[in-house]
Amino acid sequence: MDLHELTRELLVRNTTKIVLLVADGLGGLPMTPDGKTELESARRPNLDALARRGVQGASIPVLPGISPGSGPGHLALFGYDPLRYRIGRGALEATGIGFRLQPGDVAVRCNFCTLDAQGRIIDRRAGRIATEESAKLVQALQQIRVEGAELFVEPVKEHRFVLVFRGTGLGERVSDTDPQAVGALPLEPVGEDEPSRRTAQLARQFLEQARGILASHPQANFLTMRGFALRPELPGYQEVYGLRAAAIAVYPMYKGLASLVGMEILGPCQTLDEQIDLLAKHWQEYDFFFIHFKYTDSTGEDGNFEEKVRRIEQLDEVIPRITALHPDVLIVTGDHSTPSFLRSHSWHPVPTLLVSNCCRPDGHTEFHEKTAIRGGLGHFEAKYLMTLALANAGRLSKFGA
Amino acid sequence: MDLHELTRELLVRNTTKIVLLVADGLGGLPMTPDGKTELESARRPNLDALARRGVQGASIPVLPGISPGSGPGHLALFGYDPLRYRIGRGALEATGIGFRLQPGDVAVRCNFCTLDAQGRIIDRRAGRIATEESAKLVQALQQIRVEGAELFVEPVKEHRFVLVFRGTGLGERVSDTDPQAVGALPLEPVGEDEPSRRTAQLARQFLEQARGILASHPQANFLTMRGFALRPELPGYQEVYGLRAAAIAVYPMYKGLASLVGMEILGPCQTLDEQIDLLAKHWQEYDFFFIHFKYTDSTGEDGNFEEKVRRIEQLDEVIPRITALHPDVLIVTGDHSTPSFLRSHSWHPVPTLLVSNCCRPDGHTEFHEKTAIRGGLGHFEAKYLMTLALANAGRLSKFGA
Repeated sequence: MDLHELTRELLVRNTTKIVLLVADGLGGLPMTPDGKTELESARRPNLDALARRGVQGASIPVLPGISPGSGPGHLALFGYDPLRYRIGRGALEATGIGFRLQPGDVAVRCNFCTLDAQGRIIDRRAGRIATEESAKLVQALQQIRVEGAELFVEPVKEHRFVLVFRGTGLGERVSDTDPQAVGALPLEPVGEDEPSRRTAQLARQFLEQARGILASHPQANFLTMRGFALRPELPGYQEVYGLRAAAIAVYPMYKGLASLVGMEILGPCQTLDEQIDLLAKHWQEYDFFFIHFKYTDSTGEDGNFEEKVRRIEQLDEVIPRITALHPDVLIVTGDHSTPSFLRSHSWHPVPTLLVSNCCRPDGHTEFHEKTAIRGGLGHFEAKYLMTLALANAGRLSKFGA
Repeated sequence: MDLHELTRELLVRNTTKIVLLVADGLGGLPMTPDGKTELESARRPNLDALARRGVQGASIPVLPGISPGSGPGHLALFGYDPLRYRIGRGALEATGIGFRLQPGDVAVRCNFCTLDAQGRIIDRRAGRIATEESAKLVQALQQIRVEGAELFVEPVKEHRFVLVFRGTGLGERVSDTDPQAVGALPLEPVGEDEPSRRTAQLARQFLEQARGILASHPQANFLTMRGFALRPELPGYQEVYGLRAAAIAVYPMYKGLASLVGMEILGPCQTLDEQIDLLAKHWQEYDFFFIHFKYTDSTGEDGNFEEKVRRIEQLDEVIPRITALHPDVLIVTGDHSTPSFLRSHSWHPVPTLLVSNCCRPDGHTEFHEKTAIRGGLGHFEAKYLMTLALANAGRLSKFGA
């Protein structure tokens, strides 16, 4: 059964407030089998104080053994089954730069490439052309007009950029033009069905004009297209949970993901303290706040154990500023683990802590991986976190009489 | 979502090695409420040493409260949803004697029976005729030829034997001929659809000829047929996991189950030490090894608590020979529990231990039922064990960007 059929049916509107504090990549690993994880190593006076009145659990982002990217990791935390709602590559790339896709938009991830005189690809990344150089080329491509759709061309980084087609009746089942091999000609985009053939036809118009504009560039004299993807159709927070929701994030990707589920984006902000300032400032306007803290993930990706510990301690320090606002439900979790040991996202369950006045404390006095796996919430799929949040906020009525 | 769609999409090929050591029926019960289970009672220096650097969990074979047979128990451990992939009775019986079913084969479980002069069944098991006597009758039945299919008749034990039809377009929806009552006439096999009517027609040809051959036998003068079943269509380990997999088992049933998922069968072997010899000998040739140890189940079925303890200790003793090979992932588990107290398979979660260099040790220093239920893997459905194994072996890429 679709979880949202249930939340729609049972939802209760009240004035309670929920804060979802996501420390990206929170879970970790010890560097040696008998060592401590980053979270175990950190000084956590405020998280441990929450643990005393909260309930913990081990959140499984997707399924046991599956390491999620940021997209499925956050969709699951937002209560959307990450195996059902999949964000195509182009749509995720657009989301990642903060481009607000509208329903029906088709986004494509593009790479500048280098062709030889015979039109064969000799460098699939155009020598990893510098971002500033690439941005200028993107600007030139913005002149292109195609018949039957509005067009957006947006820079990303180095050789990467995003193309968005906004029209009616466009499909996403279009083949990549990147042959994935050096020495081959770029492929033609081909649509699998009628709506997708419309998209492919727009793509061909774009490619033809781009060829002329880029021809004289020494490195980036053409481009390839990958991952044609429609904006995923996600029901919104207001409709499925009855929540006015706001997102407070520094990085465009997380603002983008939040906006896909109908959250309003507050900002701008650069630091965690500024994020909490925004939380306090807008406290009366929303029922639900998603706060995203990036650095527990990026330090893990860098393999920097000590720095990840420090970032967790930084997070711990702002907890009193959040609790001072008296949220009815406060959740601290991550979208996945990012152990410094692995330098990557991982499948390990994420320590999750929920505090409310009716959460049934589980007796733990600390908050980390070893307490979480024995917590009162058990091991649960992340997609159930939102029903737990709503229940603790008194926002779900009884199921059945 | 089908779990194998996910593993196919995410699989990474590398040179890591996974060992799945299955102690059949491993989980147990205390003989008195305050007593210890078989695993708790056993001396386990090597398993406990693994526990210190591993992570444990409680594996639920099918669903809470469901006691599996060997078929679903192993399919789940192999990563196949045991509620989706069902092995029909005839196919399991054939698998159990090591008969290698081919795709499209229909297997039937047969019983010799005794008819009276009016053709009514007076003994549904032909007086549990001795196995040697039965084998001679089976040999006589092997002369039978039917039009439209190849035929295999194989002895099992006492009154039981297996019949396999190998042809094209055969169905399995054929009714049993066993009326399940003494005093009744054997029934005619009836097919529910066109392919199954073809099978039923072959079965009638067989029965007619068998009646003549068996007529003069004082006990086993006829036979009944039950559980017509096609070989289940299971995608193979190579295709769904990218693994070259080998099985090292003593008993035909487990070799048969392993071959259904495309494992190669190594052997012959009779003792656990010989099994480990084979593991060492073929170490370089495969990515995945399934080692099956039968006696923790058979001693449980016998209600012999002390002997089950001894068998667990025997298993513990070979662990150093396995770890000396440095598997990247070593899993010790069972396909279900077989408590001596119950003398049967049971539904109780199975203590499961996974060791890898990135498994996130859960702090346990022992391995048994009481530690497993509080382990870092939580309580999980056995079908997820393979994704966990693959993740720990670095054989699954990230899901979504």
